Amino acid sequence: MMEPEKELRITLIGAGTIGLSFAAFHLSHLPASSHLTIYDTRPNAEQYIRDNLQNFYPKNSSPPSITDLQIATTLPDAVSNAHIIQESGPENLQIKQDLWAEVEKHAKKDALLWSSTSGIPASQQAQRMQNKTRLLVVHPYNPPHIMPLLELVPSPSTSEEVIQRTQDFWRARNRVPIHIHQETTGFVANRLAFALLREAIHLVDAGVVSVAELDGIVESSMGPRWAVAGPFKSYHAGGGPAGLEGFFKNIGETVQGCWSDAGNVNVGDGWEGKVFRQAREAYGTVDVAERDRITRRLLDVLEEEKGRKTLANPSASQ
Amino acid sequence: MMEPEKELRITLIGAGTIGLSFAAFHLSHLPASSHLTIYDTRPNAEQYIRDNLQNFYPKNSSPPSITDLQIATTLPDAVSNAHIIQESGPENLQIKQDLWAEVEKHAKKDALLWSSTSGIPASQQAQRMQNKTRLLVVHPYNPPHIMPLLELVPSPSTSEEVIQRTQDFWRARNRVPIHIHQETTGFVANRLAFALLREAIHLVDAGVVSVAELDGIVESSMGPRWAVAGPFKSYHAGGGPAGLEGFFKNIGETVQGCWSDAGNVNVGDGWEGKVFRQAREAYGTVDVAERDRITRRLLDVLEEEKGRKTLANPSASQ
Repeated sequence: MMEPEKELRITLIGAGTIGLSFAAFHLSHLPASSHLTIYDTRPNAEQYIRDNLQNFYPKNSSPPSITDLQIATTLPDAVSNAHIIQESGPENLQIKQDLWAEVEKHAKKDALLWSSTSGIPASQQAQRMQNKTRLLVVHPYNPPHIMPLLELVPSPSTSEEVIQRTQDFWRARNRVPIHIHQETTGFVANRLAFALLREAIHLVDAGVVSVAELDGIVESSMGPRWAVAGPFKSYHAGGGPAGLEGFFKNIGETVQGCWSDAGNVNVGDGWEGKVFRQAREAYGTVDVAERDRITRRLLDVLEEEKGRKTLANPSASQ
Repeated sequence: MMEPEKELRITLIGAGTIGLSFAAFHLSHLPASSHLTIYDTRPNAEQYIRDNLQNFYPKNSSPPSITDLQIATTLPDAVSNAHIIQESGPENLQIKQDLWAEVEKHAKKDALLWSSTSGIPASQQAQRMQNKTRLLVVHPYNPPHIMPLLELVPSPSTSEEVIQRTQDFWRARNRVPIHIHQETTGFVANRLAFALLREAIHLVDAGVVSVAELDGIVESSMGPRWAVAGPFKSYHAGGGPAGLEGFFKNIGETVQGCWSDAGNVNVGDGWEGKVFRQAREAYGTVDVAERDRITRRLLDVLEEEKGRKTLANPSASQ
């Protein structure tokens, strides 16, 4: 558990979609007498933030009071008192390097520094900092006010204590912070999802299935299955008493057959027209609020089951 | 809707794990005065089937009466009166070719012939049949008494009418039969899942995450997301008003970065020891009944939501 929970001050830098989604999350999870500050360089930032924040709460629900929300107008004001500083700014190395070098001048010595980047490693972002131990990537799965995953990707300079305090923060809020042990292109969740997407694009491009048929397949098989048991656990179960080894003994040849036959398309290969058109025709504008409402229902079931398991066998909880 | 629903006779050939799981499904969905017949060549097949079938119903539930279940002792007896003949036998081309050639001699002219194979195309299985129009692959996602997906993979000889009757059968039972338009190695669901698994193995082998950490990532991100909206629909939503095209415009470079950096491991590359060991240590023997119980809860939510949508806008149902 983090020590300053009693009077926690969190500062968010950047009020785009990700920043506001994190703001909605934090406002729902702030301990009493705590404060959330947002800093954004756009004109009329305060009006923009107050107008848009309510979109991140379920329809017909009353959003938590945002009287504790402060809008800072300068970076020093924003960061000087914060225990946690979380940036969700533009995906630009130069901007992030400038930002952290400036933040470092004004922030408390033990403030945690988090970046929401989906691609720029902490080691690169920190290059112009004096003290590189406090910065790490805390990459959400969109949208972060709903999805439980946070990928914690430290640089080689990030201290163990900073990683630990970051994990404690998210676990105390029933989130799933996973420590990624190496700075890898795209981290882990996106690499996995994009690997499946690559094969999906190939299959649509080759005319094996349509965009909507492919989604129907995933929604009625891997999706619900992997929500309950990830791929390794599923195939370990599928192998019977011999586990994952048994699985590969039984159907390793089929697995390799699929791998050897993989499409391995690339961006710009020419599949774009067909695939983009099918997506437009199948979905038009997706009702994201509806999707999020149903996702919340599933996550509630999963959290209830996890709580039940933890109560039944406390040592089994992560 | 299929015509002989009133007095439907289904015959299953092969009482392994898949065959019994299908048996459990059919027994829960048989119209009145209908019959399920199972044929299996193992010694004491009847005792084996009656002893093991109850494992496919939730604990503490009373399985449907299986008085209508008949165990056939010869193939001609098993198939001669059936409207549907579904085989879940060994994954061996010779055995399946022999089976269908023999089934054809005794089956009704309009019986549907389904194979549960995960890898042997209908066109190969049918090679020694006189009439190749009635056979297609109906590949489940394990276990079929729980998971909604059926991949329908016809051969080029399978008639449209047979595909349509097969789709009608499964839709009437609230399942998700998806017509795969070409016979492809591994069909579609496994190709997609194995593409993600391949990258997952690479990431564990490279020490980026452990087996349990990787599963934790998928369970708290893609799993619940894709249960609600498949990958194309998700990324189409993620691209804002410009849809999937906007998504690739925004982060196509990151996507390609992940693709270019993909691990592309193969079976036998040497990752096996580490990955199998981690799976054993993390999971031992998986509690499959628990997994299936939670999966049913998620699928109940999704089916309820689908029903709600269909009621609200009948034309939106597939």
